[in-house]
Amino acid sequence: MKLLIVNPNISSSVTNLIEAEARRVALADTQIEMATAASGVAYIETRFEALLGAHAVAHIAGERKGQYDALLVAAFGDPGLLELREVLDVPVVGMTEAALMTAAQLGQRIGIIAISRRITAWYRECVDRYGMLGRLAGIRHLDRPLRDPGTIQEDHGAHLIELSHRAVAEDGADVLILAGAPLAGLARSVADRLPVPVVDGVSSGVCQAQALTRLATARAQAGGFAKLPAKPNAGLSGGLATLLLRE
Amino acid sequence: MKLLIVNPNISSSVTNLIEAEARRVALADTQIEMATAASGVAYIETRFEALLGAHAVAHIAGERKGQYDALLVAAFGDPGLLELREVLDVPVVGMTEAALMTAAQLGQRIGIIAISRRITAWYRECVDRYGMLGRLAGIRHLDRPLRDPGTIQEDHGAHLIELSHRAVAEDGADVLILAGAPLAGLARSVADRLPVPVVDGVSSGVCQAQALTRLATARAQAGGFAKLPAKPNAGLSGGLATLLLRE
Amino acid sequence: MKLLIVNPNISSSVTNLIEAEARRVALADTQIEMATAASGVAYIETRFEALLGAHAVAHIAGERKGQYDALLVAAFGDPGLLELREVLDVPVVGMTEAALMTAAQLGQRIGIIAISRRITAWYRECVDRYGMLGRLAGIRHLDRPLRDPGTIQEDHGAHLIELSHRAVAEDGADVLILAGAPLAGLARSVADRLPVPVVDGVSSGVCQAQALTRLATARAQAGGFAKLPAKPNAGLSGGLATLLLRE
Amino acid sequence: MKLLIVNPNISSSVTNLIEAEARRVALADTQIEMATAASGVAYIETRFEALLGAHAVAHIAGERKGQYDALLVAAFGDPGLLELREVLDVPVVGMTEAALMTAAQLGQRIGIIAISRRITAWYRECVDRYGMLGRLAGIRHLDRPLRDPGTIQEDHGAHLIELSHRAVAEDGADVLILAGAPLAGLARSVADRLPVPVVDGVSSGVCQAQALTRLATARAQAGGFAKLPAKPNAGLSGGLATLLLRE
Amino acid sequence: MKLLIVNPNISSSVTNLIEAEARRVALADTQIEMATAASGVAYIETRFEALLGAHAVAHIAGERKGQYDALLVAAFGDPGLLELREVLDVPVVGMTEAALMTAAQLGQRIGIIAISRRITAWYRECVDRYGMLGRLAGIRHLDRPLRDPGTIQEDHGAHLIELSHRAVAEDGADVLILAGAPLAGLARSVADRLPVPVVDGVSSGVCQAQALTRLATARAQAGGFAKLPAKPNAGLSGGLATLLLRE
Amino acid sequence: MKLLIVNPNISSSVTNLIEAEARRVALADTQIEMATAASGVAYIETRFEALLGAHAVAHIAGERKGQYDALLVAAFGDPGLLELREVLDVPVVGMTEAALMTAAQLGQRIGIIAISRRITAWYRECVDRYGMLGRLAGIRHLDRPLRDPGTIQEDHGAHLIELSHRAVAEDGADVLILAGAPLAGLARSVADRLPVPVVDGVSSGVCQAQALTRLATARAQAGGFAKLPAKPNAGLSGGLATLLLRE
Repeated sequence: MKLLIVNPNISSSVTNLIEAEARRVALADTQIEMATAASGVAYIETRFEALLGAHAVAHIAGERKGQYDALLVAAFGDPGLLELREVLDVPVVGMTEAALMTAAQLGQRIGIIAISRRITAWYRECVDRYGMLGRLAGIRHLDRPLRDPGTIQEDHGAHLIELSHRAVAEDGADVLILAGAPLAGLARSVADRLPVPVVDGVSSGVCQAQALTRLATARAQAGGFAKLPAKPNAGLSGGLATLLLRE
Repeated sequence: MKLLIVNPNISSSVTNLIEAEARRVALADTQIEMATAASGVAYIETRFEALLGAHAVAHIAGERKGQYDALLVAAFGDPGLLELREVLDVPVVGMTEAALMTAAQLGQRIGIIAISRRITAWYRECVDRYGMLGRLAGIRHLDRPLRDPGTIQEDHGAHLIELSHRAVAEDGADVLILAGAPLAGLARSVADRLPVPVVDGVSSGVCQAQALTRLATARAQAGGFAKLPAKPNAGLSGGLATLLLRE
Repeated sequence: MKLLIVNPNISSSVTNLIEAEARRVALADTQIEMATAASGVAYIETRFEALLGAHAVAHIAGERKGQYDALLVAAFGDPGLLELREVLDVPVVGMTEAALMTAAQLGQRIGIIAISRRITAWYRECVDRYGMLGRLAGIRHLDRPLRDPGTIQEDHGAHLIELSHRAVAEDGADVLILAGAPLAGLARSVADRLPVPVVDGVSSGVCQAQALTRLATARAQAGGFAKLPAKPNAGLSGGLATLLLRE
Repeated sequence: MKLLIVNPNISSSVTNLIEAEARRVALADTQIEMATAASGVAYIETRFEALLGAHAVAHIAGERKGQYDALLVAAFGDPGLLELREVLDVPVVGMTEAALMTAAQLGQRIGIIAISRRITAWYRECVDRYGMLGRLAGIRHLDRPLRDPGTIQEDHGAHLIELSHRAVAEDGADVLILAGAPLAGLARSVADRLPVPVVDGVSSGVCQAQALTRLATARAQAGGFAKLPAKPNAGLSGGLATLLLRE
Repeated sequence: MKLLIVNPNISSSVTNLIEAEARRVALADTQIEMATAASGVAYIETRFEALLGAHAVAHIAGERKGQYDALLVAAFGDPGLLELREVLDVPVVGMTEAALMTAAQLGQRIGIIAISRRITAWYRECVDRYGMLGRLAGIRHLDRPLRDPGTIQEDHGAHLIELSHRAVAEDGADVLILAGAPLAGLARSVADRLPVPVVDGVSSGVCQAQALTRLATARAQAGGFAKLPAKPNAGLSGGLATLLLRE
Repeated sequence: MKLLIVNPNISSSVTNLIEAEARRVALADTQIEMATAASGVAYIETRFEALLGAHAVAHIAGERKGQYDALLVAAFGDPGLLELREVLDVPVVGMTEAALMTAAQLGQRIGIIAISRRITAWYRECVDRYGMLGRLAGIRHLDRPLRDPGTIQEDHGAHLIELSHRAVAEDGADVLILAGAPLAGLARSVADRLPVPVVDGVSSGVCQAQALTRLATARAQAGGFAKLPAKPNAGLSGGLATLLLRE
């Protein structure tokens, strides 16, 4: 299958991190294609930036429509995930959702490690949107300026491990999610230094996309994810307008 | 004060309904200005359409930045509300949020009357985002094709009243919200035919905007609605880019 | 409109604080009248004291029935609010409810600053009754003996500001409520020393009363706030008995 | 032990029903004394009437202070229960709370059968106050005028049984509470016509009061049920003022 | 009545502690019989150990079927409680459930003191199963190796009291449960050193069993605790197979 | 990888259904081995039967320890899932949990179709244990006697489809789970007759087991799923005793 992975941030250095981690868990017959948002910000930390990211992802999803068998929204917080699930005929997977649903099968209480204080409000609302707030042990976060999203792992690796230990010891986390695309791959490299299973959003996303594709469930024709009702529209780019077609 | 009311739909007929109702509750010193989304759909019923609407509202909010003292997002579901609250220095009010917070002061259990089945999933998530699901008696909805958003009141008025009665008798609603900008003004005209208080999103929005403006609270400098962290961006329209400035 | 503001405590010094803050946000055509409970305690901190306060407010509300267009219960915890909403034909507003519904439009997570440890249990249950516990970031409180309810602001101002800062930094509050009628007006005077919007119960209550009056919704004829069923009663004061009449 | 049972309604016919059921489960060494509210209404259905009832119960509790080893508030909805628990040194039990905690040990989902539509809003909030809303299968209710609270069982017995059956079959109740003091004793007489255990508030209350007395836990000196803080009061009857003393 | 108390652990020293506390609150006509699990572990701290304990309790319950009027599962966490409630015709009571329902009538927020860190995950899920998570102030725990379940009280008494004080002061507990059968009787002996009521699971269980027996509600014939549907079974011990009979 | 699938029921006809569906989604390098409970009942509908099933699964898991890379508990309700997750070093997957986490990525509100009324109470508690009650649209169920668990699909197929349609139209389900091992494979065969995606517990379980294996997270050394504390045990079968070893 062809899996289109879209980075909703404009940072190609992060796109590279995502791709490297994605390839580590891709099955032999999974073809990975990467895309990076053409508009938006360097790394999403807020609801407003997520709106920009969602719009950019939707644009790409529309432009490449028909060229992929599944789509992975590759920013924690899943900008545009539920929105695209309404308009695409293929599985749409998000890093946060996939990480949560994976982590939920490894422990009862889930701790999240985040890259900034500001980002935690958005993450918490995201967990809540999926109805998983009751499973959340807590969100711990870095609290220092970020030089570059592409170098957070090397700049702050030790601190992230320390936060992880505190999430287990103080928050009662059974399982951890290292959150944010800039941390893609970190779970793998630090796993043996942490006392509980550690989940990576990117590899969870790829594995969940592979699982959903294999299960091959049908597209919704009714309910809250059926095709959009036909109605007038205006002023949309070609990519976005394509997503409104009901063909 | 200058209150900018933005219709996130492209329907100018609905903008007119909104304006008429808004003027009925505006205080003498409230100057109302209307704007209609330049891109998007005729009436938002889904998460994806709300994403388009949020983007269009943000564009207008940015372009006119500095020209209004408060902004009202005038579609039920509040596309872009929390996002804009992060980036604007003035109060930002939403029809759903304002209607819920108003209704909550008139009764304990709130019933919502909606214009289509499809729209209910989005509304329910919106109520949930505000933490008010425990107050929701239920959402009842029209279930017939909609000819034109500007004529729903005349086309379906009797049915909307019947749904309202059932929300009280069967769902236990103490207070009702007639939801959706296409219903602007209906609460006023049918109030004497309904057994509980009826709340209109537009007039609630105007009154809450007036209340917030009078209270004159300060803009957040910390927490989840502080100004956005400074960082690189790309590919954004002038209106949107303006909203990222931290001046 | 005539707004009757009732202090459920017997402290006239607090009544004066309430009146001063109320007049600051009253519209030109809002006539404010004050009343102080004739029975009860100096300042309510517990459920039992709130029962006394509720009874005293009801007595006043009945005695002056017909002489006001809206009533504001001016103690945090809203003693008698839902009860009076059942029996009065005019809007009834409470300091806590109004503050919460206002704060909810300024931030997602709400912090409350209280005047004593003991009072926090009652406040928490009050927030819960309104279904807003999911929005509560936390309640922080003074923990020293209170000399006089009328001088808490000057006696403990610095400590209240410190608690406010901790509510933002440690509890993640986006917006704060300085709770309790003895703190009326403090939000206004300390706003520029706090990093998030600060809400005052009294001025929120006045503004919400003005909003509800302007919206002019009808009185409930059905549901949980309809007029009381007719039935025998005995042993009630004239004020209370008046409230049971169904005229 | 001496158990004071207070009917918060003014109906002595209901007091008799309560007493008869209470005596059926009283242990040999339990002395039951009855009291009837001197002020209030014939039967409480609303929050406002519950306020009147709570006040009347408090008055009696204060007047007879020192003459009982436990107190049972004998109206469903428990008017004054938490309030009195703050000020009395002996166990205070409520019909609703006792019935819920008893029923919770007989089944996972609890159905409540009530005597009027109006009363259900108050009951639901009461269940919520005890944190048991997640255990509630539903509340079903009579919907006809009530001739006399003392004759509801004979007037509406068949309908109450029918409602009970529907609560099991349609709401999934594992256990039922026949709610309201006017139904005291009914559970016993109809038990063999119902397919699940049926709980009576009065006998549950007596048995829980006996259990709490036997356990002989200490009175709270800290937390939300410690003695009230000392402070000025005014205008209270002797019974109420007694409850404020800290001796 | 005959009350069978089953210790789901294999520790007879703990059985002795349980029996001593049980006899202190047993009524004159309550005959207590003790049983100790023949298989399982020394003290249950985990879900897996609770499964072993539940199986062992069920075996005993089946073997002695018909010889008791009520059964008390005497390990905190209530292994097998809901399961046995489905198959036995007599009241089945659990230490945790009984303690929670008792504590709920003594305070609004309940603190639990536990004997190890590991045990807290299981306890928390148990509180959640009963829908009481909203009433939980917190769980505090010993964090040292346990020499012998029969000597925890003497080995760690001072620390348990310290944890209790912190639960009141820091978690806001109104009432405490000293959890775990190894702590049976401790609440009684330390009550005068603690500032809030303290509940013991064993004595709560005995008192609740006595209350339920006196109320004499009928066995469920419908709903989630009706007799099991008839169907083939295989490979079960005589005790277990007896519980499947529908006679 | 070697995936051991254990049927906690004694029905080998159901084991065959499970195996057939499992093989349809197994990857080329997944070796499936089946096991059937040696003790228990024909099909689990109740908590008590689930206890028997959990015990039987644990016995098998212990006996074959070291011979599989992942284990799938193949009865809806997941008997023994969390318990085994504590004691095994490999991923343990449950049909319900896997189906829920899969369905959650296909729609927001999940409907469950069950094979009997009695089973629904157990299912509901299972959904609650995973914190997913807020995502549950409802549980609909067959209500007729079941001839044989192996023939439910042919006996009741039309009715199951009808229930599915009602779950979408009346409960607002976006996605459905056909629950219970006896329905293994049905989702696949009826997918084109249903308007929303349909999830099968067995194939979801296999795909999630494959995903978890590929992600290769480490075994918990801390938290609520760490190895069991060492302590005395007695009376256990060899299989069960093996699971207590800490080697």
